Amino acid sequence: PDIKRSMVKNAFGISLIKGIDFDSNGIVLVSDVIRKALEIDVSVLMGANVAKEIANEEFAEATIGAKPKHAKTLKILFQTPYFRIQTVSNPRAVELCGALKNVVALGAGFCDGLGLGNNTKAAIIRIGLIEMARVIEQVTGRFPTEILVESCGVADLITTCYGGRNRKCAEAWVRNPEKNWDTIEKEMLNGQSLQGTLTCLELNKVLKTYGENVNEKYPLFKNIYDIAFQGAPASSIVEGLVAEEELNER
Amino acid sequence: PDIKRSMVKNAFGISLIKGIDFDSNGIVLVSDVIRKALEIDVSVLMGANVAKEIANEEFAEATIGAKPKHAKTLKILFQTPYFRIQTVSNPRAVELCGALKNVVALGAGFCDGLGLGNNTKAAIIRIGLIEMARVIEQVTGRFPTEILVESCGVADLITTCYGGRNRKCAEAWVRNPEKNWDTIEKEMLNGQSLQGTLTCLELNKVLKTYGENVNEKYPLFKNIYDIAFQGAPASSIVEGLVAEEELNER
Repeated sequence: PDIKRSMVKNAFGISLIKGIDFDSNGIVLVSDVIRKALEIDVSVLMGANVAKEIANEEFAEATIGAKPKHAKTLKILFQTPYFRIQTVSNPRAVELCGALKNVVALGAGFCDGLGLGNNTKAAIIRIGLIEMARVIEQVTGRFPTEILVESCGVADLITTCYGGRNRKCAEAWVRNPEKNWDTIEKEMLNGQSLQGTLTCLELNKVLKTYGENVNEKYPLFKNIYDIAFQGAPASSIVEGLVAEEELNER
Repeated sequence: PDIKRSMVKNAFGISLIKGIDFDSNGIVLVSDVIRKALEIDVSVLMGANVAKEIANEEFAEATIGAKPKHAKTLKILFQTPYFRIQTVSNPRAVELCGALKNVVALGAGFCDGLGLGNNTKAAIIRIGLIEMARVIEQVTGRFPTEILVESCGVADLITTCYGGRNRKCAEAWVRNPEKNWDTIEKEMLNGQSLQGTLTCLELNKVLKTYGENVNEKYPLFKNIYDIAFQGAPASSIVEGLVAEEELNER
């Protein structure tokens, strides 16, 4: 592409795009697409970053996943007194957090739509975080313990499950059983896309390509898929939580 | 005491009390007081457990910290279809979570009182979780990575920082600068006690007994103390977050 011809030698990139793609071989990261097309090293920035609050210069953190040789430069480039950067060395894990949190947010929205309280919602967030880490392990080969307590991990997940648009739409979807996802998206998001349902749908397909019985490894994610796309009642969200707990005790 | 005389041989206990005490030697766990007085093994139960929601039989999880030989018995005793128990082998770490979360909740309340958004609040919860783990390491000798993703860890912290009474009172305190903590407690808690301020005050004293410069290791906890008791402006909460981030990069 033109960008590639215009690049200086030794150029490197950073992706701020929150989302992943899928093909027949499994999960495709946006940063991998850029890496391949431009033949450069690509880092990523993710975190608990509601855009409007950053525009108001309210304090926020973000995580940059970058190779060590680029981490310092990127931190200097992005950090301001109210926008604080932490760097970690695993960009693909950081990027996966930014997409998978939106699936957990659907579960949080179902919980809100059912009128359940803080205990249940905290359980969904907690177990969602564990399943996110397990998908990351499946894709990158390593369980990302250190990422879970970064802004791109637990913090972004909390923000998304309390304030995000995926949560909001999932709540409305449970409360208005006559409407489908497309209608909800059109009515509520003003042209923005409902990433959680897309990711949920594709994730369910793609996890199977990693091996047999892989759905058993993600009972909450499977349960969210069954509610969103297979007609399971929203109240069955609890079954995914219980199945995950039992999995952890085996 | 009478309880001790009435106990069967081989009795063992479990504490559901959320709180800690302090003496000149440092932190005193309630379970340690019971262990000493009754000379029995004592486990603890903590978790994201808003009482009213449990009474409504809404789904909740809890963590029991117990020696392996008692874990299974206690799980059978407490678990119901809507109240799910996970067990871990480090009761003192589990118990500390239940007290320290209330200090973080003050920070979350300051954030809400200042009208700051989800990004800032998520940063307070994230960094609060890290400092909780560091206090636990100081007291028990081990950084409790595995506890952070249990119900007593991240889940209870989230619940407390969104729904709890310590958060609520801290928000009101920032919004009503003419009122002191006692007034707020009396007006808002209907006879219940404001645990976060008590724990914050004692923790600040006691951390110093563990060694010199120990306050430098807990910039957010110190910052919350300075705001609650030393006249620092609530808006300085951000300084504690930045100091913690810088500490992690050293």
